[in-house]
Amino acid sequence: MVALVEQVRVIAFDIFGTCVDWWTGITAQVAAVAVEQGVQLDAEAFAEAWRERYLPSMARVRTGQRPWAYLDTLHRESLNELLEVFDVADAFDESARQQLVLAWHQLPPWDDVAGGLSRLRKRYTVIALSNGGFALLTCLIKKADLRFDAVISAQMARTYKPDPVVYYTATELLDTPPHQILMVAAHGWDIDGARAAGLRTAFVERPYERGPHHIADRASDIASDLTTTSFSELAERLGCP
Amino acid sequence: MVALVEQVRVIAFDIFGTCVDWWTGITAQVAAVAVEQGVQLDAEAFAEAWRERYLPSMARVRTGQRPWAYLDTLHRESLNELLEVFDVADAFDESARQQLVLAWHQLPPWDDVAGGLSRLRKRYTVIALSNGGFALLTCLIKKADLRFDAVISAQMARTYKPDPVVYYTATELLDTPPHQILMVAAHGWDIDGARAAGLRTAFVERPYERGPHHIADRASDIASDLTTTSFSELAERLGCP
Repeated sequence: MVALVEQVRVIAFDIFGTCVDWWTGITAQVAAVAVEQGVQLDAEAFAEAWRERYLPSMARVRTGQRPWAYLDTLHRESLNELLEVFDVADAFDESARQQLVLAWHQLPPWDDVAGGLSRLRKRYTVIALSNGGFALLTCLIKKADLRFDAVISAQMARTYKPDPVVYYTATELLDTPPHQILMVAAHGWDIDGARAAGLRTAFVERPYERGPHHIADRASDIASDLTTTSFSELAERLGCP
Repeated sequence: MVALVEQVRVIAFDIFGTCVDWWTGITAQVAAVAVEQGVQLDAEAFAEAWRERYLPSMARVRTGQRPWAYLDTLHRESLNELLEVFDVADAFDESARQQLVLAWHQLPPWDDVAGGLSRLRKRYTVIALSNGGFALLTCLIKKADLRFDAVISAQMARTYKPDPVVYYTATELLDTPPHQILMVAAHGWDIDGARAAGLRTAFVERPYERGPHHIADRASDIASDLTTTSFSELAERLGCP
C-alpha cells in the first residue's frame, strides 16, 4: 500500500456503474418516456437488455468488424433493435428515440462519489476515463456536479476499453507513465485491461450496479492492487483525510 | 447580443494570456531559477524572448515543416536556443532546464477569471481550448484552482491554433455545431482562426498580457462578435448574474 500511495500521481475513474448508477437512471428515464408515448413497457427489463448490448456493440468496433462509431451511435442502434424486440417500435418516433439516447447523458452518481473525489483531488490529479463519448461525459459530469481535473474519452483513441490503446492514450495525454496511474473501476474487464496496459488498479464493489435482479462483479473474482466498497474508503486508504 | 446568448451552448477559453498571466509567472520563475543557478539574467527580457518564439515554433508544426511535437518540446527547444543567445547556457543543467519548461505548467490566473468562470458555468458548458499540451493544461488549471467542465488541447488534433483542425476537433468532441460555440481569447490570431472555423468569438482585452513594456492586442483592431475587458463583464453580458 505504501508503494502504491507513493507511486500514484493520477487516478483515472471509469464512469458507468463506477461513478454513476446507470440502472436506476436509465430505468426511470425509459419509464418516463414510455408513459409520454402512452405505451406499456417493462422499463427495468428494457434498461437491462439495453446495457447487455453495450459490451458486444463496442467489441465490434474494437475488433475491427465495423468502423469507428461513438457511444451515442451504438446506443441508438441497440435501442432501435430493442424497440423491435419489445414490440413497441411504432410507439417511439425519432424525437422519443433521441431523448432515450440522451438518457445516458444524465445519470445519478452513487452517494459516496462527490465527497470521495473531492478528498482525492487534494492529493491526486483525478480524471474520468470512460467509453462514453466526450460530449456525453462532459454533460453527465456537469449535471451530476462531479469535479474531475479533466475528461478523457475512448473517443480520443477511436476504440474502446479494454483495448490497450485507450489506456495508452491516457498515459500519453497525461504525460505520465502507466505505473503512476491508478484505474478505478467496478468491472473486472476494465481492471484486467488497465493492468494489461501497465496501470495500477483499484476495484470498487458496486453490488447494485446491474440492478437488484443481477449479480454485479465481486471483489473475490477480481485481481487488483486494491479493493474497496466506496470512494470514501478509497480516499482513506490513499491517504486523503 | 440576444441571438448570441440564445445560440451559444459552449464557451471555449484560450488559456495563456487570456486566463493566466504568463508574463508575470514566467518572469518570476526564470528569476528564481537564475538565482538558484547563481547567474545574472534579465528575467523580463528572457521571458519575453521565450514567448516571442512561441508562435513561430508552432507555425513550423502547423505548416508541416516539422512533424508533430507538443508544446513542452517546443518550449524546451526555444529555451535551449535562448540560453545560448543570453550567453548563460553553461549555468543551466538538465534539471534546471526541465524546471524552466515546467514553469509554463504553473501560472497565476487574472483576478477576474475564477469568479467569471463560476458564473458562466451555471448557464454554459465551459471548456479550455489551448495550444498547451493536455498534461500542461490539466496541471495549470488544477494549480490555479479554475473550474472548467473539460479540457481540450491542440495535442488532440496534433496541430496548433489557428489551424482550423483544432477548432473542428473541439466541435467534433463536443458534438456541437461551431455556431453554438463561443471562443474567448485575448489574441487577434485566435479570434480570426475561430471565426474562420465558424465559431462565435469574444475578444477579451488583457492590456498587460505581454508585460508592461509591450502593447497587447487591442479591441479596436479585432473583429469579434463581442468585446470585453474581464470575465465578470463577459458573464454579465451573457446573462449570468
